[in-house]
Amino acid sequence: MDGFRFSHDVRVRFAETDAQGIAHHASFVIWLEEARVAYLAAFAGGYQAIRARGIEALTTGVHLEYARAAAFDDVLRIWARCGELRGARFRFDYVVEREGGTVATGWTTHATVDAATHRPTRVPDWFADDVLRAESAPASPAS
Amino acid sequence: MDGFRFSHDVRVRFAETDAQGIAHHASFVIWLEEARVAYLAAFAGGYQAIRARGIEALTTGVHLEYARAAAFDDVLRIWARCGELRGARFRFDYVVEREGGTVATGWTTHATVDAATHRPTRVPDWFADDVLRAESAPASPAS
Amino acid sequence: MDGFRFSHDVRVRFAETDAQGIAHHASFVIWLEEARVAYLAAFAGGYQAIRARGIEALTTGVHLEYARAAAFDDVLRIWARCGELRGARFRFDYVVEREGGTVATGWTTHATVDAATHRPTRVPDWFADDVLRAESAPASPAS
Amino acid sequence: MDGFRFSHDVRVRFAETDAQGIAHHASFVIWLEEARVAYLAAFAGGYQAIRARGIEALTTGVHLEYARAAAFDDVLRIWARCGELRGARFRFDYVVEREGGTVATGWTTHATVDAATHRPTRVPDWFADDVLRAESAPASPAS
Repeated sequence: MDGFRFSHDVRVRFAETDAQGIAHHASFVIWLEEARVAYLAAFAGGYQAIRARGIEALTTGVHLEYARAAAFDDVLRIWARCGELRGARFRFDYVVEREGGTVATGWTTHATVDAATHRPTRVPDWFADDVLRAESAPASPAS
Repeated sequence: MDGFRFSHDVRVRFAETDAQGIAHHASFVIWLEEARVAYLAAFAGGYQAIRARGIEALTTGVHLEYARAAAFDDVLRIWARCGELRGARFRFDYVVEREGGTVATGWTTHATVDAATHRPTRVPDWFADDVLRAESAPASPAS
Repeated sequence: MDGFRFSHDVRVRFAETDAQGIAHHASFVIWLEEARVAYLAAFAGGYQAIRARGIEALTTGVHLEYARAAAFDDVLRIWARCGELRGARFRFDYVVEREGGTVATGWTTHATVDAATHRPTRVPDWFADDVLRAESAPASPAS
Repeated sequence: MDGFRFSHDVRVRFAETDAQGIAHHASFVIWLEEARVAYLAAFAGGYQAIRARGIEALTTGVHLEYARAAAFDDVLRIWARCGELRGARFRFDYVVEREGGTVATGWTTHATVDAATHRPTRVPDWFADDVLRAESAPASPAS
């Protein structure tokens, strides 16, 4: 996937389908989060490392466009990258693929806050550095 | 419903259905919790009052038997009662009905723990008193 | 809420919270759907009427911006309106409020397809008429 | 795990946690299903093969006892076996482990029905044979 160096696979659970016989559209929001967590684990010490320093990353926006339906037991590859990192805000972009065809595209935006006060706090330098390093690294194989 | 004085209604969400065209069986666990929370709000000062005193109620067991399928948009009446209260443990019983027919029956068991230490702590007297009072009160109309 | 004539209330379930102590951001996608279903029930014969005619409404896009966190047991008022209806596509806009303050805003886009062939099919005239009538009607009280 | 030959691992998603900071108890019901689906894929041609023959497997009961809390990002190993197969009914038993310690135990019961009529129909012989063969096979490594 052009411009992406990281991917994470999920398999559609039966509980994630709905009475239309396809994966419910809200399930994708959960999968983007799973891919984001896997990305942070691979490149930035993990979401736990951020939380361990007293920082929470809140989700401030979600955007998804669905191109095709996904079905029970489909294996979906979620390409993820951290696209912007400024001050207390960062953004992830995603492409959800199945066998090379695009199922959905989307992005999420996030704000870092102090876990105790819930006030905005800058994205830590080590986090920003790790992520930027990840984005300029050679493409990693899909997880 | 014989032996029950409290009920709470839920309407089956589309997201709670699955590719069999019926409500997914895990959805019932969420509905029992919603009914339990409504019960505690009606009779025992609310789950928030318990948490405000530094006590958490953990779920230690769930049991459900499904008699009939539920469908999207069905209105389900969940009868709930607090059946046993001993030491640090209590139990809820449930009947899930649709238009008078039983859809499912079940129970959940719970343990009260200190929120800070997560050690077992006795169910507070005021909580036990309130619940026992509820169970011996005249039947309340369905919420 | 300016420009909205319909609202639907939800109460945040405990299962919808996450380890940040707030409602998980994916829960909002489910609530928008619940509000949309309630809107269609109020104005357009219900989602079931659409399905009964062999038409499925697929979700083709979701967009949410979160202004404030929602907590367990919060009552959220979801204002919804059907903003555009053209050919085989329609769009809903939403504002999620708590005690008059905006918690989130968003929209969803949808396409109508033939349930059997899954090919795009025009939004039925009666559906479009009912919805347009709803949007030009005097404001309804919140459900 | 004594008496079990199959296991399936899941990693606790952030969306599966709740405001108590632990995995919500309903999440386990979903994980048991994921393990059951993986079991059937490994040994009985897969759940899809059953559905392809016009048979649906309904869940008729769920039982779970929680011994310990699970947290975000925990890797849980779910041991599963098909314990009984009689007429139109079968049963699965489960142990959920984390690093060798039991987190939960449970079982689910199921009934096979004709997908078109939803009438009970015997578990197909090939399904029963495959599952029995699986249970008498040498222990498989964890998936």
